[in-house]
Amino acid sequence: MRQFQSMGMSCNGSRLLILDQTLLPGKEQWLACDDVETLVGIIQRLAIRGAPAIGISASILLGLLAERGLSREQLLREAEVLRAARPTAVNLMNNIDQMKAKMQAAEYPLAVVAEAERIYLEDIELCERMATRGAALIRSGEQILTHCNTGGLATAGIGTAMGVIIKAHQQQKNISVWVDETRPLLQGARLTAWECGRFAIPHTIICDSTAAMLMKNGEVDRVFVGSDRIAANGDFANKIGTYSLAVLAKHHGVPFYVVAPRTTVDPECPSGDDIRIEQRAASEVQGVSGSFGACCWAPPNSQVYNPAFDVTPAALVTAWVLDSGLFTEEDLNQKDWWCGA
Amino acid sequence: MRQFQSMGMSCNGSRLLILDQTLLPGKEQWLACDDVETLVGIIQRLAIRGAPAIGISASILLGLLAERGLSREQLLREAEVLRAARPTAVNLMNNIDQMKAKMQAAEYPLAVVAEAERIYLEDIELCERMATRGAALIRSGEQILTHCNTGGLATAGIGTAMGVIIKAHQQQKNISVWVDETRPLLQGARLTAWECGRFAIPHTIICDSTAAMLMKNGEVDRVFVGSDRIAANGDFANKIGTYSLAVLAKHHGVPFYVVAPRTTVDPECPSGDDIRIEQRAASEVQGVSGSFGACCWAPPNSQVYNPAFDVTPAALVTAWVLDSGLFTEEDLNQKDWWCGA
Repeated sequence: MRQFQSMGMSCNGSRLLILDQTLLPGKEQWLACDDVETLVGIIQRLAIRGAPAIGISASILLGLLAERGLSREQLLREAEVLRAARPTAVNLMNNIDQMKAKMQAAEYPLAVVAEAERIYLEDIELCERMATRGAALIRSGEQILTHCNTGGLATAGIGTAMGVIIKAHQQQKNISVWVDETRPLLQGARLTAWECGRFAIPHTIICDSTAAMLMKNGEVDRVFVGSDRIAANGDFANKIGTYSLAVLAKHHGVPFYVVAPRTTVDPECPSGDDIRIEQRAASEVQGVSGSFGACCWAPPNSQVYNPAFDVTPAALVTAWVLDSGLFTEEDLNQKDWWCGA
Repeated sequence: MRQFQSMGMSCNGSRLLILDQTLLPGKEQWLACDDVETLVGIIQRLAIRGAPAIGISASILLGLLAERGLSREQLLREAEVLRAARPTAVNLMNNIDQMKAKMQAAEYPLAVVAEAERIYLEDIELCERMATRGAALIRSGEQILTHCNTGGLATAGIGTAMGVIIKAHQQQKNISVWVDETRPLLQGARLTAWECGRFAIPHTIICDSTAAMLMKNGEVDRVFVGSDRIAANGDFANKIGTYSLAVLAKHHGVPFYVVAPRTTVDPECPSGDDIRIEQRAASEVQGVSGSFGACCWAPPNSQVYNPAFDVTPAALVTAWVLDSGLFTEEDLNQKDWWCGA
């Protein structure tokens, strides 16, 4: 397999390495990932996260396993184990289906490797297209708010929502960014802030509940978020807190955009009601834990409700920024709108 | 001075003791508080918090200092130092004014002690009245959402918003409570959850950004919050995140109530625009710190915006639950509406 290096994963030709995102920003440690069991563990403890990145890493690993001589039956079995690693990410399902299709080829090892490389390179290209489309919406001097982490750690390319921000910054639009800390796992305060620093983008971390006040004070010009799954009717799932931002943006007349590759759209999923929401461990809310240390502050007998995602209805979205085009509510009536004209 | 014991402060007749709220729920440690400098430090590091509790503790200390023989001039000077301890809490300003008025009396030591005792006992009575009025709004089986901590730790009595919840529970209304964790200082996850546990009230801790999704799913019947300052037009300041909840409640048609003693209303403050918002240290958002440990996860060079409070406009409030009555938007046109008919 070709060598490559992105912000959050790399391949030296025979081995997949994953940057352990749970250790950021304090420590940059790369994890060798030689088998499916290891990658599933890495995905489930969120050492790699972001819907595109998860699907790409799974594809790369299947490519490497094919190169190492696993049989078609073994590869198909491993693909199914990977598919179950995170239920909400439709990219993972799609990528696994693409990889499985190639496993049917006569020369399946070569075909599987080529497909993994194609998926990787395609993501870089898709990120560029989304970033260019999204950045065109931003005017000079604007203040942008974003949630969670949707940058180079979550993708192979420059990111989805964060890619838009990076592109606008590179176009010298003089933007500044409000970074939602994104409880419980703090992907904003840890990862997005770290990425902003890497690109020297002016940014300010806020508690998630502070966004409303900033909007009221006219200090948020646009909101850009990513998505883990978009239903055929435009409803979408994303990190918990996204729906809250969408309601607040609507109330304050702030444009609200979803940025995602078209592969995030799940044609089999008619609406947001059909998106299954992953519940995560109480311990994530009872405290914090990571390379920065661990604390637990909640009374041990208190119950916790910790959904990883929420669903935002299409009516709250100003536009869907996909690689295939910029879509508004009017476009949703067209069949397969996400594919573009 | 009389002996007393509330959830968060006590007096053995000659000495004020404050329960260090920064150590809860892990540890119950009482701090002796013999001079103004110590109390100002305790207030500023939030070892005691909650607008009523701050004002009451300052009054008690002035009473004890008067008993110890401080001159009128010394007492007046100490009162001014206490007044400046936290700028948003109008109760503190009011209580200091009440205490200062008694310092003018001929028998000022006795008058000052009596006034401190009166302020303490009055708060207990006010809490009871608010709780009774608020609980009357709650129907059997309802799910209540609250923010920050407004219970017995924040007052001398059973609390403001939390007092309503406790009362409804004691009336066997079979309620359950969604407890916003309340970043950055986690007063919800630490203190409100702890108080719920003490009263055996069924409760569930959520991240602040999860409230919107619960409202959408019909799982929040009412929101009760406290207030640090209510303007004459009904706008009010409360813990950061309150305004966000008010917008979300409006969007979802969920009744939203402010619970406070009438003394929280500041007649000198015409509207929310006139409320000065306290900015707090970046370190509160860059990580967490308390008896449970300390962690810092944000990149050190990232900027932070950390307002302690936000302002909610009157238009988003269903009713003001004061000791003096239950008030709705229609009442706001009446002069001194907060005093009741």
